[in-house]
Amino acid sequence: MKVDDFFVNRGSVRQYKSEQVPDAVIDDIILQASKAPTTGNMQLYSVVVTKSAEGKERLSGAHFNQPMVKGCSHLLTVCADFNRFTRWCELGKADAGFDNMLSFISAMTDAVILSQQICTIAEMRGLGTCYLGTVTYNAGAIAEILSLPSLVVPVACLSIGYPAEAPAETERLPLEGIRYYERYPSHSDSDIVDIFKSKDDYVPNHKYVEENGKENLAQVFAEVRYPRSMNEEFSVSFMEFLRKQKFLK
Amino acid sequence: MKVDDFFVNRGSVRQYKSEQVPDAVIDDIILQASKAPTTGNMQLYSVVVTKSAEGKERLSGAHFNQPMVKGCSHLLTVCADFNRFTRWCELGKADAGFDNMLSFISAMTDAVILSQQICTIAEMRGLGTCYLGTVTYNAGAIAEILSLPSLVVPVACLSIGYPAEAPAETERLPLEGIRYYERYPSHSDSDIVDIFKSKDDYVPNHKYVEENGKENLAQVFAEVRYPRSMNEEFSVSFMEFLRKQKFLK
Repeated sequence: MKVDDFFVNRGSVRQYKSEQVPDAVIDDIILQASKAPTTGNMQLYSVVVTKSAEGKERLSGAHFNQPMVKGCSHLLTVCADFNRFTRWCELGKADAGFDNMLSFISAMTDAVILSQQICTIAEMRGLGTCYLGTVTYNAGAIAEILSLPSLVVPVACLSIGYPAEAPAETERLPLEGIRYYERYPSHSDSDIVDIFKSKDDYVPNHKYVEENGKENLAQVFAEVRYPRSMNEEFSVSFMEFLRKQKFLK
Repeated sequence: MKVDDFFVNRGSVRQYKSEQVPDAVIDDIILQASKAPTTGNMQLYSVVVTKSAEGKERLSGAHFNQPMVKGCSHLLTVCADFNRFTRWCELGKADAGFDNMLSFISAMTDAVILSQQICTIAEMRGLGTCYLGTVTYNAGAIAEILSLPSLVVPVACLSIGYPAEAPAETERLPLEGIRYYERYPSHSDSDIVDIFKSKDDYVPNHKYVEENGKENLAQVFAEVRYPRSMNEEFSVSFMEFLRKQKFLK
């Protein structure tokens, strides 16, 4: 495998063959990914693997019935987890002070790093993967279904399976739009237009503008796909859930 | 390269040769990493690269003078960024409702995924990398130094350079301690002891217990390395900073 080609050509895969991936393969991927960087080597994450049809059925609604949930071989819900570590501290009669926002942020970082390492290793083995962003929208419902205790919050969800389609092709912003040397620049309006030109000009995006009766792609994103009312509603429920899980007072 | 060996044998590198990595190499790594998964293909991140001696000097204190800051070739501060996307929406006369916690969580996820992809690609090219967790402790100070505008929050920091030491060897928890099928289990105390046995028994950890005059490793973590008072102080400042950057009302 040529490393450079791999990273440039990768893409999400949303359709999978019905054949199940062996559990041993999934386990080995997770084990290898657990050598990824982690805050102070605390491994502040857990992975709950859903492979049963009943389990997927139960989670499907929380992911707005996206077909990857029932269509994949294994659905991995990766959680920020300070529960296990806190239990260990308590058994050692140590004052575990991890019921706060900084600790959530550290654990979330660990969990997302692990997720991406799982994603890369799975893809390098020829499996298809897709993240489900809905995991944080309905974190409370997912936590209930998966019996997540306090100090455990689902932050990433990956569907994995044998690919039944080519990886999705998507446009990306130019390097100059995302990487800055020394300081964050003060963009002019025309800088912003230039940065997003690749997205505005990308022909497959034009159909979304037309289908939704909007003037441009930005309106599709801000008013149809990720409208303010939805973002604000899920912000409230996510904060409430962080409070319930004891990361927030 | 054998993929499996690479992921199992990787480790953080904290000491670097004085030779600078060419900017073109860093740029190419970031560009390739930008094909990593991202929420709705919005690429809600920015990377601020510090390579000047003055820039590293200015950031050093915010990272508690960890030697990787001045010792590395390039220091990458990876930010959750909804500023650029919001500017684009505003130019398109779209109502951009991304000044909320859900949007921060989405952008943080994108930024950490990108960071880990950068880490992997850099390591596969023979470079050494190390995350600096201090980035969220002093996010406000770092934002000031790097001129980060509203809706931009530093969430990950990677030092990169030619390695001057072998990757750090660290123990990890057994797979059974981090990966659960179908539901999060209800651990007994002895389950927890078993899960952390590899950590408690790992000989290089014993010196930390002794040096700090503690009874066990858990006390070193909870009372010396990550004490409650520090976690709570930085939680308050992080939330204040999220408010200042307009992600929180």
